[in-house]
Amino acid sequence: MTELSQQLNFILELDRLKAVYRKTTVKPDGDRHENSAEHSWHIALMAQVLKDYVEEEVDITRSVNMLLIHDIVEIDAGDMFAFAEQTDHDAQEQKELAAANRLFGLLPEQQFEAMKALWIEFEQAQTADARFAKGMDRILPLIQNMANGGGSWVKHNVSKSQVLKRNAYLEQVTPKLWDYACQQIDLAVKNGWLRDE
Amino acid sequence: MTELSQQLNFILELDRLKAVYRKTTVKPDGDRHENSAEHSWHIALMAQVLKDYVEEEVDITRSVNMLLIHDIVEIDAGDMFAFAEQTDHDAQEQKELAAANRLFGLLPEQQFEAMKALWIEFEQAQTADARFAKGMDRILPLIQNMANGGGSWVKHNVSKSQVLKRNAYLEQVTPKLWDYACQQIDLAVKNGWLRDE
Repeated sequence: MTELSQQLNFILELDRLKAVYRKTTVKPDGDRHENSAEHSWHIALMAQVLKDYVEEEVDITRSVNMLLIHDIVEIDAGDMFAFAEQTDHDAQEQKELAAANRLFGLLPEQQFEAMKALWIEFEQAQTADARFAKGMDRILPLIQNMANGGGSWVKHNVSKSQVLKRNAYLEQVTPKLWDYACQQIDLAVKNGWLRDE
Repeated sequence: MTELSQQLNFILELDRLKAVYRKTTVKPDGDRHENSAEHSWHIALMAQVLKDYVEEEVDITRSVNMLLIHDIVEIDAGDMFAFAEQTDHDAQEQKELAAANRLFGLLPEQQFEAMKALWIEFEQAQTADARFAKGMDRILPLIQNMANGGGSWVKHNVSKSQVLKRNAYLEQVTPKLWDYACQQIDLAVKNGWLRDE
């Protein structure tokens, strides 16, 4: 198989991420569930819009690339709800690693290695580029839920501490957005949209 | 209003692109129509995967940014089918310009100007960055239709010359992908998926 055939197979396989649905809903489209492909577009573009709030040294291009690929493993591993309590996290990690090997493995060797490394960097969130990307992935559902009467938080009885923990990636890389997230979380508690246990 | 409030308004408004549907369908999701948000994700990521085929000097980051924003105007102006013959193109252009002013105009002044300029550069396709972006936007439906028994071409009785014309942006910036597109178009004619008038 030529390299181009491998790349086109990968590109066609990506269509399947449009069939992976999240807990968040899309209000302007009849409140249907959001899929992981359109979510990936939204946060990649959001990273561009909010890049000036970054206070560490961040290569935005790398963060955007992470956001474009970060959910691809869900094609095989499915979307795990952020606040699911009964999930076996180790088993999910193993499923996602196998998915990364199969899906990125559709690409020519060099691209496979590069894309898998970028995905692992995002998952581990040990670099500023990855923390900013993770922060974007986490703050968008917060913004959506705040605009949507509490959205998936209310439906799934989520607590303040859970949302704080998920958004903490913002603290170091973009303190202003972290402050904003904390204020919004307090407001959500006041509105009865988050449990304050 | 603070700059952050303006930016968050813009980010929330983007949700509406998930409700703009195209003629292409998503086979793995019950052959439903594809929306412009998930399409934008797909081509932005495809640009990363195919960037090594570029033979002009292209700043891929700028091309990806163009692809992430290129369809936003459809929130107000709607998606115009690529091969619509009875569309008033001047009227559509005016609608899209008004949409760019309203939608990018939600952002702080400097971001508004930068994003509008990037969108206009994409539309005019006079730079290598824009031609590569346009080429990606055009070749993906070709790849999807070829994998989908002719897809929207068959349904809408599209001709070979129409598809050749739409994909010609590839010729200068990435001759190898242009050759590939031409071969696929010939194959589509043989398969009876494109009219050869």
